[in-house]
Amino acid sequence: MELKIKNLKIKTGRTLIALMNSSDARELDLHSMDRIKITKKNRTETVILDITQDSKILKKGEIIVFEEVRKLMNLRNNDKVSITMARKPKSLDYIKRKLDGKKLNKEQIEQIIWDIGHNKLNDIEMTYFTAACYANFLDDEETIHLINAMTNEGDILKVNSKKVIDKHCIGGVAGNRTSMLVVPILAAAGLKIPKTSSRSITSPAGTADTMEVLCNVTISLNKMKTIVEKANGCLVWGGALNLAPTDDKIIHIEKPLSIDAKSQLLASIISKKLSVSSTHILIDIPWGEGSKIEKRKDALALKKSFEKLSRKLGVVIKVILTDGRNPIGKGIGPALEARDVLWVLENHPNQPIDLREKGIKLAGHMLEMAGKAKKGEGEKKARAILDSKKAYKKMIEIIKLQGAKITDPDKIKVSKYKKEIVAYKTGKIVGIDNQMTCKVARFAGAPENPGTGVFFIKKVGERVKEGEVIYEIYAGSNSKLKNVEEAIDQRKIYKIK
Amino acid sequence: MELKIKNLKIKTGRTLIALMNSSDARELDLHSMDRIKITKKNRTETVILDITQDSKILKKGEIIVFEEVRKLMNLRNNDKVSITMARKPKSLDYIKRKLDGKKLNKEQIEQIIWDIGHNKLNDIEMTYFTAACYANFLDDEETIHLINAMTNEGDILKVNSKKVIDKHCIGGVAGNRTSMLVVPILAAAGLKIPKTSSRSITSPAGTADTMEVLCNVTISLNKMKTIVEKANGCLVWGGALNLAPTDDKIIHIEKPLSIDAKSQLLASIISKKLSVSSTHILIDIPWGEGSKIEKRKDALALKKSFEKLSRKLGVVIKVILTDGRNPIGKGIGPALEARDVLWVLENHPNQPIDLREKGIKLAGHMLEMAGKAKKGEGEKKARAILDSKKAYKKMIEIIKLQGAKITDPDKIKVSKYKKEIVAYKTGKIVGIDNQMTCKVARFAGAPENPGTGVFFIKKVGERVKEGEVIYEIYAGSNSKLKNVEEAIDQRKIYKIK
Repeated sequence: MELKIKNLKIKTGRTLIALMNSSDARELDLHSMDRIKITKKNRTETVILDITQDSKILKKGEIIVFEEVRKLMNLRNNDKVSITMARKPKSLDYIKRKLDGKKLNKEQIEQIIWDIGHNKLNDIEMTYFTAACYANFLDDEETIHLINAMTNEGDILKVNSKKVIDKHCIGGVAGNRTSMLVVPILAAAGLKIPKTSSRSITSPAGTADTMEVLCNVTISLNKMKTIVEKANGCLVWGGALNLAPTDDKIIHIEKPLSIDAKSQLLASIISKKLSVSSTHILIDIPWGEGSKIEKRKDALALKKSFEKLSRKLGVVIKVILTDGRNPIGKGIGPALEARDVLWVLENHPNQPIDLREKGIKLAGHMLEMAGKAKKGEGEKKARAILDSKKAYKKMIEIIKLQGAKITDPDKIKVSKYKKEIVAYKTGKIVGIDNQMTCKVARFAGAPENPGTGVFFIKKVGERVKEGEVIYEIYAGSNSKLKNVEEAIDQRKIYKIK
Repeated sequence: MELKIKNLKIKTGRTLIALMNSSDARELDLHSMDRIKITKKNRTETVILDITQDSKILKKGEIIVFEEVRKLMNLRNNDKVSITMARKPKSLDYIKRKLDGKKLNKEQIEQIIWDIGHNKLNDIEMTYFTAACYANFLDDEETIHLINAMTNEGDILKVNSKKVIDKHCIGGVAGNRTSMLVVPILAAAGLKIPKTSSRSITSPAGTADTMEVLCNVTISLNKMKTIVEKANGCLVWGGALNLAPTDDKIIHIEKPLSIDAKSQLLASIISKKLSVSSTHILIDIPWGEGSKIEKRKDALALKKSFEKLSRKLGVVIKVILTDGRNPIGKGIGPALEARDVLWVLENHPNQPIDLREKGIKLAGHMLEMAGKAKKGEGEKKARAILDSKKAYKKMIEIIKLQGAKITDPDKIKVSKYKKEIVAYKTGKIVGIDNQMTCKVARFAGAPENPGTGVFFIKKVGERVKEGEVIYEIYAGSNSKLKNVEEAIDQRKIYKIK
């Protein structure tokens, strides 16, 4: 059947979809969610069919394509295309197989990931896949296939080095901007560390948001390669690169039920690392009350899962459990966190000691993993690199290579709408709540407005007097400042005993 | 936040969705798939949020609502509405619970079905529900709750009688239009049988398509009530009524993977029957090679599931296994099947004996179930009603009440584009393939073009000579006839030995 293209110029967000008039669809005996082949000259693409009975939207003889299809096939309004029925993708059989509790082989997992990567599955079909992986689990072998398939579906950064080091933190701790310390320390030690990071989704700042205060983070893969060749390391936004791109699509599907199939969590993290050719990966699992993982046994179980994969994937994965109960650093929000990082690198009197020490700890482990320090001597070496300002200089080099905006922490702009919050009683600070801190910082405007957030004057372990300033809020406007003030119950943020 | 309505006039098909500009969404800290409350004066509705970054589609300060939301809230372009964040529906927790393999209680299942019924869940969320029910099964108690929740979510036809009888066939057999015999026989016997049927989805004709050749089948619930009060029975299209409406939504979600969770199959069938107040239900399970259920043990397992529910639901359910290997009747396609039915009711010499006998068999069981015949004497009574033309007269009465089109089988129009197919060898016909028959009839134009399809001259058990006409194809046009001829391999339809 020959139909005339009508471009809708609306994105579906993911799936390749075309819309046919119900009368045309009946003629070809096609139903909603069937697959059709659209052919224009020599180019053929299989897309998912949707059907409308509304002739105001679509007349007989016309076919609407959504933006993703238009772009892929370079279609113009009134282009004539031929439509034929296509088979359902084989991956649907494999997804059904997993939902039936059976095991998938390498080719089957590769086909599913290829179809997701090429927008050949719709939301319903992808959901069956995540549901099947969640309800029926993937075993180690299947997880390895998933990791490799997800890695190979995207671009790969080739690094001219036998050892490529990387780190990942499971998250859940406010502040905690250790990557921005670890990268310059290790790069200064001569190790290749092509770091990609994410932007914030539900936190007040991601590493990419924070680094963006200092320099550009939207960098092409080629540029990234050049920077790593010159400076050994970089700190770029992963979202701008086509690295393990199916991960984002799967995460989108997992969101409504906050599903976290372990196999997909592992695959998500490791495939991103493999796609930048990492050979040595440190995983930081913060745990404890108020953190993402509250119980030690859950943190240990996750550690074990990573370690099991390590052996089978042929890469070195080391997992450490860290204290996740309280925020790390003084500033919360992109600019305030960037300032903390530069203070630590400069060895500035204002520097947050907890962030400095955690950075040294992680870098120490990584130096040992990569053979740059003897067992037990990594931290010492990391501290020396930091103290000598070599890491600071390396960071300035990286910032300049990525397109510097600011290198002086005192020039980082924070919002002028500031409010000091005082202690509600006299005593010792025994805890600062991660989630409440995030809430306040986001409410104040972070990460959208980079100069907003929270700044801790007093931290856990310190003694305070009633009425003494314990933290500051930087909001995007006077009205936001008022709203935050009214909304917060500071007893829920600071625990004073 | 106050926003200005922009109606898109496009249906989502199911879910209530509104689209916000990414900058407005960020201000309220909202993400894709979050829930928002839209308030216009005193009317508030919770809908699912989608976010666009394309300011060509949606400017800051505007909100797009899809057609379902516009209609529900009676919104006009430029209406000012207030937007606030809403909680995620509780049913998402319950769906997660089932996906985790836990049991759901009555209230939890009711909440899920209410949310599906009110378009509060999107495709991803509904898929998690069907996947959870499929992978982790619903036990008998959960299935009962599901059936009741699905029934109560829609309208209920109240019938002024203690006994209301109904039947359902699992399908998979071409022709097999027994409802159109059973309804007039039982109604003539004084039993209430308010029959709703579906249209064809993948077959050449559903009962609703076939009945529509003779009269109107799109009937309101009130009109249906009046007809059943007058004539004891009716044969209407269920799709036009709001009976157990969540069923269609769940079926849509099950389609891509052809999932048939047993609990949902049972709930789908029984909730439709309970919504017309049925007290006595006969289930026909055709089985055998080439049928939907090929193995006797699978047919028996399904029979057992129905019978178990019967006791717990307080309705009488009887299940019979029938021969599903071959088509039943001579005509395949709406008009040809309608003609078969009238021929049987008229006791016409052309009548297909297999259809007549199957109708009598089912009606016999139902007469016994409802206490209108002693055990073992149902068929005799059904045959007498049929032979006496009482069933014929009853059918004419029902056709007239529904708005008659045709009552004389000889006036039913079949397509003039006809082709006779001859036997490819001499021998005995040992089988006619259901699926191939359906394919040919649909290819010829059924059910879209009601006068098209297949007509069997010779049936299973008969001896034929090579070159003798064994069946006819009625197509929608000369070109369709040619296409069908070229496409069919008659050895795949008729098995001659």
